Amino acid sequence: MSIAAENSTHSQDDVVPANHGYTPEKEAYLRRLKRVEGQVRGIARMVEEDKYCIDILTQVSAVNKALHAVSIGLLDDHIAHCVVDAAQESKTTGDPAVVREKVREASDAISRLLR
Amino acid sequence: MSIAAENSTHSQDDVVPANHGYTPEKEAYLRRLKRVEGQVRGIARMVEEDKYCIDILTQVSAVNKALHAVSIGLLDDHIAHCVVDAAQESKTTGDPAVVREKVREASDAISRLLR
Amino acid sequence: MSIAAENSTHSQDDVVPANHGYTPEKEAYLRRLKRVEGQVRGIARMVEEDKYCIDILTQVSAVNKALHAVSIGLLDDHIAHCVVDAAQESKTTGDPAVVREKVREASDAISRLLR
Amino acid sequence: MSIAAENSTHSQDDVVPANHGYTPEKEAYLRRLKRVEGQVRGIARMVEEDKYCIDILTQVSAVNKALHAVSIGLLDDHIAHCVVDAAQESKTTGDPAVVREKVREASDAISRLLR
Repeated sequence: MSIAAENSTHSQDDVVPANHGYTPEKEAYLRRLKRVEGQVRGIARMVEEDKYCIDILTQVSAVNKALHAVSIGLLDDHIAHCVVDAAQESKTTGDPAVVREKVREASDAISRLLR
Repeated sequence: MSIAAENSTHSQDDVVPANHGYTPEKEAYLRRLKRVEGQVRGIARMVEEDKYCIDILTQVSAVNKALHAVSIGLLDDHIAHCVVDAAQESKTTGDPAVVREKVREASDAISRLLR
Repeated sequence: MSIAAENSTHSQDDVVPANHGYTPEKEAYLRRLKRVEGQVRGIARMVEEDKYCIDILTQVSAVNKALHAVSIGLLDDHIAHCVVDAAQESKTTGDPAVVREKVREASDAISRLLR
Repeated sequence: MSIAAENSTHSQDDVVPANHGYTPEKEAYLRRLKRVEGQVRGIARMVEEDKYCIDILTQVSAVNKALHAVSIGLLDDHIAHCVVDAAQESKTTGDPAVVREKVREASDAISRLLR
């Protein structure tokens, strides 16, 4: 298969498909999530080995914290890219519907994280 | 004093002073905060009257929830106005610094709420 | 009515009625809640004076934090007194129902706080 | 080594060592953590495949919620077993130090979860 064909889904002219703001830091996110996955597996091992419940809870808190950092990063990316792009686009089109939708998505996501 | 003079701080041509997005819903925010203040006073009264600790905790959770709603409202307003305005302004000026700053403020506020 | 009769519910020898664990620190709780009430009133004033939304959010986070401290204090008191007393009582009576109920109340309260 | 010797730490009559309250539900905890691990892996896959940031955030919230359920379960077990056992033991020994320590551990764990 040619390189062009291989990359076809990501190489269409002036379209940047599936670029959601976090794309430039994709590797960093994947590393962080890999670490979280390892932490969760570590917690399961602690349960398996009958470790002290309080020590397990400390590890659960560490995973919560790591996931919060991921969430804040993704929200920052959403606002800095999706919202900002929609705001600038709406300035051109004069239609505020898209930007309103992106803001609402951000608020709903924040609301879900606070619960 | 003429009505024009009375309203002078809010009627300068294309300037909307101290309008931070939440201004149109100011009365609603004030009502909500008045209610939260009353809830906190109610909790103090419960402590004063030696009410059962679990019942007091239930009321504290209700205040947390009410404050979350206020927070999400303010964040939504910040993103929908401060961030969006800065994004559109930056499109004109070509300078992304202001929008970057507004997004960072939103992320920092979200981060503080999640902690 | 004599003073003795008036105080009767609070003066029976080795019984301390309406003592829910937090009673010895009642004054400290009332001071903290008075401060939280003042903070909420301060937030309303900021809204009234059209202060910057992010600065208001910072104050809301401070109130959340103060309420968390109150919650943790009350939970600690509940566990240290209600749960522990019930556990010791159940050792005498041989009936685990009361202690089970107190633990469940604690877990439900924690669950509400985490939401 | 005989099987009896091999299992000796786990087979003394009325002693159940390394029983931290959650032991009877160990399998349920392991299943739940296995599911959380799968969810985290799913989130990484979404990042890998450039899925929409808001959809990723929804999954992160689901993991938070699942971990909260695990935390509350472990706390309930800690209070129902470690705290209650210490309370009953302290009634016999007359020494409140152990129970005080178990309560403090619970409060510290709750405090870490609320942050």
